[in-house]
Amino acid sequence: MGSEEGKSATIIVFSGALDKVMAGFIIATTAAAMGMEVTMFFTFWGLSALRKGGPAEGECARNWMQKMLGMMLPKRAADLPLSQLNMGGMGAGMLKTIMSQKSFSTLPELIEAAQEMEVRMIACQMSMDAMGICREELIDGVEVAGAATYVGEARDSAINLFIS
Amino acid sequence: MGSEEGKSATIIVFSGALDKVMAGFIIATTAAAMGMEVTMFFTFWGLSALRKGGPAEGECARNWMQKMLGMMLPKRAADLPLSQLNMGGMGAGMLKTIMSQKSFSTLPELIEAAQEMEVRMIACQMSMDAMGICREELIDGVEVAGAATYVGEARDSAINLFIS
Amino acid sequence: MGSEEGKSATIIVFSGALDKVMAGFIIATTAAAMGMEVTMFFTFWGLSALRKGGPAEGECARNWMQKMLGMMLPKRAADLPLSQLNMGGMGAGMLKTIMSQKSFSTLPELIEAAQEMEVRMIACQMSMDAMGICREELIDGVEVAGAATYVGEARDSAINLFIS
Repeated sequence: MGSEEGKSATIIVFSGALDKVMAGFIIATTAAAMGMEVTMFFTFWGLSALRKGGPAEGECARNWMQKMLGMMLPKRAADLPLSQLNMGGMGAGMLKTIMSQKSFSTLPELIEAAQEMEVRMIACQMSMDAMGICREELIDGVEVAGAATYVGEARDSAINLFIS
Repeated sequence: MGSEEGKSATIIVFSGALDKVMAGFIIATTAAAMGMEVTMFFTFWGLSALRKGGPAEGECARNWMQKMLGMMLPKRAADLPLSQLNMGGMGAGMLKTIMSQKSFSTLPELIEAAQEMEVRMIACQMSMDAMGICREELIDGVEVAGAATYVGEARDSAINLFIS
Repeated sequence: MGSEEGKSATIIVFSGALDKVMAGFIIATTAAAMGMEVTMFFTFWGLSALRKGGPAEGECARNWMQKMLGMMLPKRAADLPLSQLNMGGMGAGMLKTIMSQKSFSTLPELIEAAQEMEVRMIACQMSMDAMGICREELIDGVEVAGAATYVGEARDSAINLFIS
């Protein structure tokens, strides 16, 4: 933990909306490109952004409520809805089309870029337990930790954001 | 105001959604347990988390619009809806069930823990005026103050979050 | 960029909801009144708060999807909806009525106050491109910049908030 004061940033990604998660990754990759150490914490709905899709291989204990919740949540970053004007996915599709016309990075590309830039990605243990999301469902390279890890990082960081 | 720089945290709770308010209290109690001084500011929809329920005893001046608003808002922390998948309260109920199976603290328990750990809770005066929420409707131990109190605290704090 | 450490604040306004944007401006103007240098970054839905209304004079290149998006978004600060209980504008109208009875500032008044207090307002270039919002559609005095400008400001600021 730690790092020279003023040189690091933390971003809590609580939301699972495409537009908000993208904003988090744009800030994270920009800060990393500018030499900052960046840690992203994914909690609650934000965990969806780290799911890798496909059949849930994870065999952590889940009851029927958690299974139902797991089915209702987006299975991977590419499936996230917009926070507004989603219109059953049409809004998200339009945004993706426009962004591809402009040659902006997609969310999966931003996530990959963040990993290459060594942005730390931490999934919240408690949220995973509550939502029945197993470690095996998440993309590689993600750490699992709790709120104390977050607070320990944030109190020495120059930028701390909560994206809800 | 003040406190040694880098040792305190502020959290604005703007949202009145169960999941978001819980996230605020989890961070607040974790930071307090790690020795930080924590101040939470409740504004707009977030005020609902501080209402103690029961008949509104507060007799502050209210017009019919404010009374209507007061009736539409949740009456206490235990009644808050989820920000997503609430499904008329079923989603919130499911989350509570899962969390109780996991022995996680409920929101009322987290609030009590925060008070025992001397987390300062401040209700925004202006929001109370706008929404017609009286001091008497709020749980004990809550202070009432304005934006200047917030800014004074935040500019000397190591962690500042806005939960919207 | 820069400014003496601990004396400045940044606020990202990602949301286009009346209540959230107002919260951002209340904090911004309070901090400015207390002597802090304040920079607000408007991104995604938050850009709506900076549109000046009237026919879109901006003649930046836009395809039909961007034109449609531009029509669906609020045309100016006074038209923003509430994030909750908006009820087709009735909720926003009620809030405005109550706030005017209490002699609180309206959002357009807060924006004007912020400009008089030299709060810097920056519109996110990438969001403008994605949403097809032209410089000419925005109120005067707004700068246009990108995420690197934000990170450069935020890492030297005492308060950094993300209002989503």
